[in-house]
Parts: sequence; C-alpha cells; structure tokens
Amino acid sequence: MAKLFDKVAIIGIGHIGSSLARVIKRDGLAGRLVTLESDPEHRAKAIELGIVDAAIADAAEAVQEADLVILATPVGTYADLAAGIAPHLKAGAIVSDVGSVKMAVLRDVGPLLPADVFFVPGHPIAGTEHSGPTAGFAELFQGRWCILTPPAGTARAAVDKVVALWEAAGSTVEIMEAGHHDRVLAITSHLPHLIAYTIVGTATDLETTLQQEVIKFSASGFRDFTRIAASDPVMWRDIFLNNREAVLEVLQRFTEDLTAMQRAIRWGEGDKLEEVFRRTRAIRRSIIDAKQA
Amino acid sequence: MAKLFDKVAIIGIGHIGSSLARVIKRDGLAGRLVTLESDPEHRAKAIELGIVDAAIADAAEAVQEADLVILATPVGTYADLAAGIAPHLKAGAIVSDVGSVKMAVLRDVGPLLPADVFFVPGHPIAGTEHSGPTAGFAELFQGRWCILTPPAGTARAAVDKVVALWEAAGSTVEIMEAGHHDRVLAITSHLPHLIAYTIVGTATDLETTLQQEVIKFSASGFRDFTRIAASDPVMWRDIFLNNREAVLEVLQRFTEDLTAMQRAIRWGEGDKLEEVFRRTRAIRRSIIDAKQA
Repeated sequence: MAKLFDKVAIIGIGHIGSSLARVIKRDGLAGRLVTLESDPEHRAKAIELGIVDAAIADAAEAVQEADLVILATPVGTYADLAAGIAPHLKAGAIVSDVGSVKMAVLRDVGPLLPADVFFVPGHPIAGTEHSGPTAGFAELFQGRWCILTPPAGTARAAVDKVVALWEAAGSTVEIMEAGHHDRVLAITSHLPHLIAYTIVGTATDLETTLQQEVIKFSASGFRDFTRIAASDPVMWRDIFLNNREAVLEVLQRFTEDLTAMQRAIRWGEGDKLEEVFRRTRAIRRSIIDAKQA
Repeated sequence: MAKLFDKVAIIGIGHIGSSLARVIKRDGLAGRLVTLESDPEHRAKAIELGIVDAAIADAAEAVQEADLVILATPVGTYADLAAGIAPHLKAGAIVSDVGSVKMAVLRDVGPLLPADVFFVPGHPIAGTEHSGPTAGFAELFQGRWCILTPPAGTARAAVDKVVALWEAAGSTVEIMEAGHHDRVLAITSHLPHLIAYTIVGTATDLETTLQQEVIKFSASGFRDFTRIAASDPVMWRDIFLNNREAVLEVLQRFTEDLTAMQRAIRWGEGDKLEEVFRRTRAIRRSIIDAKQA
C-alpha cells in the first residue's frame, strides 16, 4: 500500500484510535504517525505496543505539520480539542473524526477550523464493547461500512484521501448528509444501546439473590444485551447528549410500540403479538441476505 | 450411557424436541423413541433424519407404554395435548416438558394427569433462533442449565430420572419452584425477547428507504436484537400469554427506567446517564466470571 500522508495525528489512542493506528502502521500509510493523548498510561501503552511513532500530550506539537488529524475521543471533548489544535493546523490539513454522531461534530468543530483546512467527518461502523489501546486490532474495520459526512462544498481531493484511508482499512465508504446519518444511527445503534443499557440497569436494581439468578440464567436472552451494555460509558453518554432530537424521536416510536405490546399481553391478544413476531423474522432474513449477520 | 427408559415419546419434533431426540439416540437412553407430531412434513423429516424410531400422528398410539412423555410444543397447546394423552398414559409414567413458562404448565397440565403418573415439568435454558426438526443438534444442551419445577411431593425417583436425562444431554440441573422460575425468566428471557421484538417491529414500520439503511448499517447494535427477534412466533406468543403477570411486572420496572433515561437525555443530564452505563458494565463482568458469556 502506498503512503497516503506524510504525517498523521490521531487524537485519542483508545479502541478505535489504536485500531486505526495499527492499520496505518501495517500498511505504511503515513510517513510519521503520532497520537495526542491526555492519559499517560495510554501514551506509554501506545509506545510499548509500537503502534505510533510518538505519543504526545501537547496539542501544538502533536498536530503541527500533520496532513491528517483524526479525532478519536468521546464526542463531548471535540469542541475543546478543536479550539486547542486549530491554531496549530497547517494549511491544507485534513481534519476528520470517528464519532458516532455527525451533526454535533459539524456544529462543535466546523466553526473553529481555519478556512484553509479541509473538514471530512467520518464514522466507521465498527467496534466492540472493549475500550482502550490494548483492545484495538487492525482487522476491526475489515468488511465494515464507514460513513463520511463532508459539509457541502468540501474539496473532492480531501474526501478522496479519507476514503482511501478507510478503504485501506478494509471498509466500504458511503458519503451521507450528517443529519441523515444521525437519524439512521439513532435507530440502528443509539436506540439499541439505550435499551440494552436500560434493561441491564433494571436488572441491577433487583435484590441480590434474584440478581445472581439473572446472571446464572442470562444465556436465555439477557446475555446478548449485556455485551452491548458494557460499551464505554463516557463515549455513550456523549452520543446521547449529542444526538438528542433523533434519539428522542425514535425512542417515542419505540415506547408507543412497546405500550401496544404491553396492552396485547394484558388483554391476551395473541394474534397481535404473533403478527409482530412474524414481521420481525423477515428483517432478520434481510440482514442475513445483506451479509451483515 | 445406560438405557434410562424403555420407551420415550417426544411430543413435537421441532428445534428442542429434535435436539433431545438426537441426545437420546446418541446415548441409547431409550429402548424405543417415538414422536407424536401433527405436521406430516416434520414426521417425514424426523424419520429421514433417523432421530426417532417412529413418527406418529395418533396420541394414544404414541404415548401408550411410554415411561417418559415430554411435551415440546408451544405452551398454548399443552392443555389440549394433555387431555388427549391422559387416558392413554401407563401407570408410573413420567410426564415432563421443555416449556419456557412453568406456572401455566402446572395449571394447564397438572389437573388432567391421572394420579398414578409423575409430573416433572422442565425448562432447558438453551435454544437458537432457528425452528423445526432440521435445526436441532445433540450438543444444544451441553454446558447449559436445565430447570425442573416438580410440584411439591413429586416422587424423588421420578425427578431423578428426568435429572439423569438432562445430565446425559450435558446440562446442569437446578430444581426450582415454578413461580420463582417464571419471575426469573421474565427478566432474563421474556422481557429481552419482548423488547427485541418491539424494536425490530419499530424498524419495520419505517419508510422503505430508511428501512434498507437500517439493514445495511445493522452491525452497529440493531443486528444483535434481530437474532432474538427471529425466534419462533407461536412459541413466543404463548410464552407472553402464559407468563402475563411476571412479564407485565418487570416490563413496568423497565418502562419506568426507560422514562428516566429519556428525561435525562432531554434535559442533558449526562451524569445520570453515565452512572447507569457504569453500573451495567459490572453486570457484564459478572456474567463473564460466571462463564455464561
């Protein structure tokens, strides 16, 4: 794979940041790869793992002369980070990110960037419930989607460079309008996570003996929710706070539907339950057909 | 493995029934193994797969002289089935089942059985989202729990025989009071399934283009729910109708908690969200420690 950038700076060397660093190292995509990371343990770990050339605590030093800067911290940190790095970005640099919400990124980061910097927000649809630099792996993005949401008018050459990076990681790139991204992800990702967190939270409020039995017999369905509900707390807090409108809208639909199910159970309306249960089976088949299962 | 029964009759040769049949055949646990099955295609398939000695449509013929009769059909069919087989059960026969609710089984089946028959309801905590005799496999119960809920005073020897069957299948058996079973499973299994069915149902109501994108980007969380929501519709309809009180009780707790999350998102209360998200991570670790992950 040919070198794509002279210098890349990844801000935050957690699960996603460190996975991307591994891709860049593996394929020699950058002449120099550094991370800007506030956690000294993560900095030490990144060097120990050999996935970056330098792990830096100072924003100016990290991003200076970088052709590509990628934000890979919780979305709630973006505004402060952008303010910190903006004065030190070189003309023609590309700023991207890996956050799970995109309208808030346009809102928080866009206005802070110099006019001679290209802004190409992104969202790799990949990840596990694990966190931190040791949890990363280069194959994380293989066969997955990556959505880019460049603002209208972003230079094609800058977008193409970010596309090339994600294609090197093994992803298929889709360009999308940021608001549309946020509505789609509210359904496919944010609502499922909210519900998983809630049901596991409901179980943690049970008395101790019952809670132990829930853990013991979790293979009957509950277990599948706990994996999702083990995702990074700060990252997910920031997602919900920054995609509020879309999440509340789809949550409203969900609670209406749940209330209808509750009523059908209370009144013994088996036909209504069965009708929904048959419809949902078809969706599973569509996902298998789309090779996303 | 030594023979446990002279004749076993499995009623319903679906996913669970056919898996248990495979165990009984593999280990030679029965002198003769038959299935009572109303679906002619399933009868033909069971014979073709060689997992039973006979596939029978007549209740009297199927259960006569059987030492063990296991109901493995949706719970809603049990009352009619029990009425149909009761006159033909031999003295000393054991009647068991594999249903996911247990109070309703005591209610629907118990009163119909002759006094000289032993009743040992059971629930293997195992299964996949697939249905039918071809979806079964002998290893399904390996390393899983099986809960038995014999009514107070059931002969120990009869319970021990059913325990031996499930231990041969590789399961660990737990004896539990039926009402307690139903409350625990309402949390670990019935509520998660109801929620998964509902959220996937919510997605099926979206306009077509959005629905296609939900399928495309389902790997971001939604996908995990669709597997559960592909479970057998009739089986699950009957579970909800027959564990109504316990499901409605835990659903009420869940909706209260979800409303609190909704409010925290609306008012931007990040601390409340993060606190719940941290608690739920601990539950995941407990499940991993309990080797149920």
